[in-house]
Formats: sequence, structure tokens, C-alpha cells
Amino acid sequence: MTDRLDDVLAYIDAHMDKSLDRLFRLVEIESISTDPAYAGRCIEAAEWLASALEGIGFDAAVRPTPGHPMVVGHSGGGSGPRVLFYGHYDVQPVDPLDLWNAAPFEPKIVTAADGTKQIVGRGTSDDKGQLMTFLEAFRAWKAVTGELPIPVSVLLEGEEESGGKNLAPFMEANRDELAADLAFICDTGMWDKSTPAMTTMLRGLVGDEIIITAASRDLHSGIYGGAARNPIHVLVDILAGLRDETGRVTLPGFYDGVGEVSPAVRDQWQRMGFDPDAFLGEVGLSVPAGEIDRSVLEKVWARPTCEVNGISGGYTGNGFKTVIPSQAFAKVSFRLVDRQDPDAIRKSFRDYVRSKLPADCKVEFVPHGGSPGVRLPTDSPAVVKTQAALTAEWGKPCVLVGSGGSIPVAGDFSRILGLDALMVGFSHDDDRIHSPNEKYDVASYHGGIRSWARILAALSEGRVS
Amino acid sequence: MTDRLDDVLAYIDAHMDKSLDRLFRLVEIESISTDPAYAGRCIEAAEWLASALEGIGFDAAVRPTPGHPMVVGHSGGGSGPRVLFYGHYDVQPVDPLDLWNAAPFEPKIVTAADGTKQIVGRGTSDDKGQLMTFLEAFRAWKAVTGELPIPVSVLLEGEEESGGKNLAPFMEANRDELAADLAFICDTGMWDKSTPAMTTMLRGLVGDEIIITAASRDLHSGIYGGAARNPIHVLVDILAGLRDETGRVTLPGFYDGVGEVSPAVRDQWQRMGFDPDAFLGEVGLSVPAGEIDRSVLEKVWARPTCEVNGISGGYTGNGFKTVIPSQAFAKVSFRLVDRQDPDAIRKSFRDYVRSKLPADCKVEFVPHGGSPGVRLPTDSPAVVKTQAALTAEWGKPCVLVGSGGSIPVAGDFSRILGLDALMVGFSHDDDRIHSPNEKYDVASYHGGIRSWARILAALSEGRVS
Repeated sequence: MTDRLDDVLAYIDAHMDKSLDRLFRLVEIESISTDPAYAGRCIEAAEWLASALEGIGFDAAVRPTPGHPMVVGHSGGGSGPRVLFYGHYDVQPVDPLDLWNAAPFEPKIVTAADGTKQIVGRGTSDDKGQLMTFLEAFRAWKAVTGELPIPVSVLLEGEEESGGKNLAPFMEANRDELAADLAFICDTGMWDKSTPAMTTMLRGLVGDEIIITAASRDLHSGIYGGAARNPIHVLVDILAGLRDETGRVTLPGFYDGVGEVSPAVRDQWQRMGFDPDAFLGEVGLSVPAGEIDRSVLEKVWARPTCEVNGISGGYTGNGFKTVIPSQAFAKVSFRLVDRQDPDAIRKSFRDYVRSKLPADCKVEFVPHGGSPGVRLPTDSPAVVKTQAALTAEWGKPCVLVGSGGSIPVAGDFSRILGLDALMVGFSHDDDRIHSPNEKYDVASYHGGIRSWARILAALSEGRVS
Repeated sequence: MTDRLDDVLAYIDAHMDKSLDRLFRLVEIESISTDPAYAGRCIEAAEWLASALEGIGFDAAVRPTPGHPMVVGHSGGGSGPRVLFYGHYDVQPVDPLDLWNAAPFEPKIVTAADGTKQIVGRGTSDDKGQLMTFLEAFRAWKAVTGELPIPVSVLLEGEEESGGKNLAPFMEANRDELAADLAFICDTGMWDKSTPAMTTMLRGLVGDEIIITAASRDLHSGIYGGAARNPIHVLVDILAGLRDETGRVTLPGFYDGVGEVSPAVRDQWQRMGFDPDAFLGEVGLSVPAGEIDRSVLEKVWARPTCEVNGISGGYTGNGFKTVIPSQAFAKVSFRLVDRQDPDAIRKSFRDYVRSKLPADCKVEFVPHGGSPGVRLPTDSPAVVKTQAALTAEWGKPCVLVGSGGSIPVAGDFSRILGLDALMVGFSHDDDRIHSPNEKYDVASYHGGIRSWARILAALSEGRVS
């Protein structure tokens, strides 16, 4: 069946107008998830998608949650592995509305100054345009061959932009139904406008707030200064001691489970043309922080961190107050990679804080989040096949990239469903997601649909894991 | 003439009722300096005092300032040195009014559970009762001998509780008129209810706010974490480096001009019965902070400090935000002693901060205050004579104490008028100054008047400096 790939690609090219029309219909539905006034439109978008999946031959349904509904669909096909596709149909609010050049929910194609054709409208890139790339690829396979090359399930969420707290419980409650061999998340971007990318590394996160109490009340620094413990001093000593002079985190066991990036991936990164000076320069910096013996790209994609995200204590208003405060606090987070254990790192951090605490001080810990990093094996059949398919489509080698931030859904796929989640998407840095005049290049949409058509074919040949 | 001291003391004892009446009249005037609604009452208090001084034979006048007026008076007398007395007639606001057991400006004598007679009312201890001790001593000398044992000038302020920013300019503008050999400030307390004290050490203060800027905007810690400089890290490293493991401040030259307390004063401190465990225990602490080889009393009276009085950066609200902020700031103060130079210490601090700053970070400094410490020579004739007079009055050795806080007027006397300012007062720790039900023990008032009568006599014999 996969020998029909060329026909499928030709079908996609020939029916782009219709594919765009369908995307326009979906974008027109004002499915803003954070604003309760749009709850009805979220249901409408879910129903539209379930209906679209049914139209392609999926067994699909709108599935209620305590929040906005999920859309779940299943299709048989071929004899390969079952692949679960994820996207989200909800969009960001549109304010400030007066900065839009046209109505955000009346999508249109605009030709940019450089000749690029862009689909402009809220959600075109994040994430309606992206999820429609795989739906349209399914449609083309069905139209040309009557079936999909492999069994496919689809899970579309309606709360990605508003906390997404119903996703994990939904996965847990429907573990059997969502069982698959592999997952794809289509919510990321290309490396640049001509280079496809797959995100194979995500950093996890452990957050802990520490509140240090010394005296039972705020003290006058004239009367007590020099003899009374200042909790700000305790706090800054603790925080300063978290890193050594080479930028490494000093907590015992912190680097347990941190693997090195493979030479192949490292080589590829060096060829990608990443410019660390431009990356830092764009935000007014010129001296890389952190571990002195690691490249900037490695630091943000493949190395764990310790950051103080907030600190406060004593008098912070205008002017001066000579106070020794009773309390001081800091919010500290660790970005985790590879097989670092969030629980072990939280424990090591708390043990360290307690070890530095004077006998008459108290510390309170408030946990915030705890998720491991994700590092897909870059030599797995699924990664290799997907990479080859993307390379074939775009005519340039697909790069394997990292993402310094967390994508919680990837962790959920791994933790709840036991699935590796390959992150493939076609957005660009200039897509203005979350901002006025959001757009998705027609080339992203067209190339995205063709990419999935190729990936489905590639995965149908042999094992994926 | 000083052989008439016994007669003067007897006169004081015999006329205590009238002395109390006069204090009541002054307390009844609601001279709250911070509230503009009471500006007229401040003028009234100043006029009452100028009139009282004239009644004792002083050449006295209410002297305007841009704020509440000063009262200045001069009297000849004897052949000794001229002594300038300072007190303040303004008082703190009275709220919360419902916590007062009686109207704050209707003074009365109340007998406490332990039999102590207390004058209750706003300003009885801080500072109307105290300044009236020297006025009543002048009155007694005049009544018994017709003149004062030494020439005396009086300077009474009306803005001590509201910033006092007109005092230094007034001193500068009236430098010649206020010329004297010695000054007394009557605004401090006794060591305990039976032990007189003279404050011979005050700490000065240098404050500096440092604002550190790294990136040009707040950054997402996922995208930039590990490579972008976090100004909170820069700040905590700087602050942690200000003290070494022995509690000493590390700034170059910081201890220049810090003398050791004399063995005599140190011996006296050891005999004073100061309980460091109780001092710290009262505020919930048990482990002294600061320099490891110094006693608690020495730390708060005679040693310089470095305290972080406020710190802030990043996200400090509820919950968590994984931000790397653009800026972080801290408010840092140094308590100074002896001959430490505020300007040199500010410079050393700023040089140190700049030396620790990464090349692409900026620092802004905002100065707050800068005053040297005060350490009177404890073997000067004035100190020795005053100490002896107080010892004679109270029947227990007068102790020489320090004050960890700053009393700006003492610095002004030294800096502007070139005068040593001896701080002698009779308040107690339980006087509830600045709080509801402020009181001044009748014993403080009576013993205070008698003390000044003795001090005037003692100073009339020979040189004071």
C-alpha cells in the first residue's frame, strides 16, 4: 500500500484549496478556553473535529471532562503499530484586539512583503493549523487508498491554553482505549523555515519554595543588628552555595541520571548554525551563564539547571527601613534532563537547606510541580523513520532538537500511557502565537500535511520500537 | 555656690508637686508633629516652653523653621563651661486610641501593681518628662541660689518624631549662638530601674540599595535557563560574600577606625548583669549571629555590622512562575562604630559589588543615609564628672552603655557644632514609648531632676574637656 505514497502526495497538492477551506472553518470557531463565555464555542470546535474524523472514517466522539471536552477517534489500517496523535483545538484570547490587522476569527491568506503566503487568524499556528496537518494527511490516504497505512488514534484537547488539568485524569481513566505503540505531539516548530525538526529532549521541572523564619518578629537593626540572625543572610548563603565556581549545581546526587548527548547529535547541533551570541544578544546579554564547559545550546536543551525564580524578604518598598525581618523566602526551580529523579532532587535540595540552617531558624517548604525530563532514544526505529520521512519531504536533513521548557503532555504520555512521544510540528518562530496577527505559513500547512503522509507510510514498514 | 547643692536637692524634694503640675500642663498640649492638624498645638508647646524658660530667667524665644519651631534659651551662671541641653517637645500620634486606659493628653498619676507611681500620658517619657527634668533642675538652682552654677543654653526641637530634617540646617544657621563646651541629650534611658546610665557609644549608618540588571527583559527559565544570567544569582553571590565564616565583614578596609572597647568599660559591662540568652530569647532566638569571637553586648553596641534589610527579585506572589527576571535588588546597611568613615565604607562596598559583576550586567546604587558612629572618650572630665554625679544620686555606679541604633542629633552636635554630646536620660524599657499608655515613673522624674542638679554642680568645678 505504501507504494501509493506518490499518489497520496499528489492528491494533497491537488486538493490544497479544500484543505485550507476546512482549516478556515475550524479557525472561525472562537474556541478560547480560558474565558467561560466561550465554553459553547469550545464544544462546537470539538463537535466539528469529531465530525471531521467521522467523515474520514474514524470512530470518533466528543468526550466530556469537568472542563472543555476531549475529542477521541480511532481508525484501523494496515498492519503496523498503532500511533496516537495529539493536538489541541483551544486557542488563546485575542486581546489586545486593536493590534490585529483583521478580525482574528475571520481567517484569510495574506501575502507578506517577502512573498510568503500566510494564513492569518487566531489558532492558525497554535494549534489548529498544526492538528489539521495530520487530519488532512489521514484524509488523503483514505481518499487515495481507502484506508490508513497504520492504525491511528487521535486525542484532541480543549484546555491546553488554560492549564490542561483534565488531560492526565482523562488519560488515566481511558488508559486501555488510548493504548498505542507510539505517540506524536504536533505542537512544536521547525528549526528554521526550510529545516524540519523533531524535538527529542524536553526538560522536566522541580519547584520548591523555601520560607526561612528566624526571630519571632521583625527586629530593629540598630538594637539587634550584629547579634540577631537575619534570615535574608541565611537564605542568600543557602542560595549562593547551590552552585560552584564552574556553574555546576552542588547538591549531592544532582547529576545522577544525566547522560551525555551522543556524538552524532552533538555533531548535528554544530552544523545547525545556531548562533549563541545572537540568542543571548537578543535579550541584552553577552556572557553565557551556567556551566563553563558546556555550549549554550547544550545548556538550554540537555543540561539540568538550578534557578532562583523569586526572592523576597524585609523591606522592599521605596526608601529604606533598617529592619531585620523575621522571614525571607525564595522560589527555586530545577530543570531536569534525561533520567534525573524529581523526588530524589527535591529531597537532596531539602536536606541541603536543612544542613545549612542555624539551630534556631525554621524552614518551611512548599512544593511546586515535579516532572522528569524526556530524552527519546535517537536511534529508535520510530525516530529514525520519522526523521527520514521529514528529510525526504523538506529536502534538508531533519534535525533533532531539544526544548528547554517542559511540555507536560509529553510527560503524561510517558508516565500514564508508557509511550514515547515524538514532537513534530511545522510552526515558525515568527508565527506570533499568543499575540495579535497570529499566522501559519501556507508552506507549513502544505508541507506539514505531506510530511505526515510520508511518516504514516514510513512507520508502516516494520517495527517502530 | 556648689556648696548649696544639698539645699537645691531639698528644694526639689519639697516642690515635687509643683514640678509634676508643670509637666502635666506640658503633656496636655497635643503636640503631635507628624499630623499637620496639630501644627498649632506644636507652636503652643514651643510657646509654653519659651515662657517657662523665661520664668526661670533664661533669654528664650520660639524660633521659626520651615517646619515646627525650635525653642532656644540662654542663661549665664557661675564661671564654668557652657553646656547645651537638648530635648524634644513633639510626641508620637496616639492611635490606636482604644488601647489607652485613659485619655492620652489628660496625664495622671497611676499606682502600678508593684506600687510604682507612674505618670501616664503621651510624651511623659518621650520626651516631655525627660526635658522637664533639666528645666526643673535649672528652676531649683535659680530659686535657691539666684543663679545657675554654669552657663547653660537650651535647644528644644519639635520634629524629632517626624524626621527632624530642620534641625541640622537650624544648627548650621545658628552655629555661633549655639556655641558651647559640651552638650547633653536627654532622650535615653537608665540601665535598669535602679542603675543610672550614660550612653557613650552610638552606631552610625550607611545604607545603599543595589539594583542589578541582567537581561533586557524577564526570560522564560525553560528557554533560557542555564545560559542566561540570573540577576538573583548575581545578587545572592554578592551578598553571601559580604561576610566570612567567622561573621566578619569582608570589605577591604571595613574595620579601619574600629577601636577596641577599653578593659575598664568591658569589665563594667560584665558586671552589669546583661543576659544575652534573655535578650535573644525574647524574640525567639537562641544562637547569636555575627562575629563569633564577640559578646552579644559588644556586637550590638561596639561592633560594626552589615545587614541586608530588604531583598526582592523575580516572582514573589502566590504559586510559582518559572521566570528569570531582568532585575533584582537589595537594601544593604552598615552600622558603623568609632572612627569608621561612612564615605570610605560606601566606596568599598560599591567597588566590591562592581568587582563581582559579570560583564553584561549593570548595577545601580541608591544611597540612603550616611552618618559616622559616636564614641565619647570615657575618661574625659565631663564624662567622669557626670558619671560621678549620677552615681551619687542613685547610689549605684553609673554604667557607660552603648546604643546600637543611631541618634542623628548626637552626630549633628559633633559634626556641626564640634561638641561631644553626653546622652543621659531616665526612661525605662517598660515606658511604652510610641505605644498606648506611655508612662514615666515618678521616680524617673524626681531622680532625673535631682541628677541634673548634681551634674550642674559637678561641671562647675574645673574643666570639662
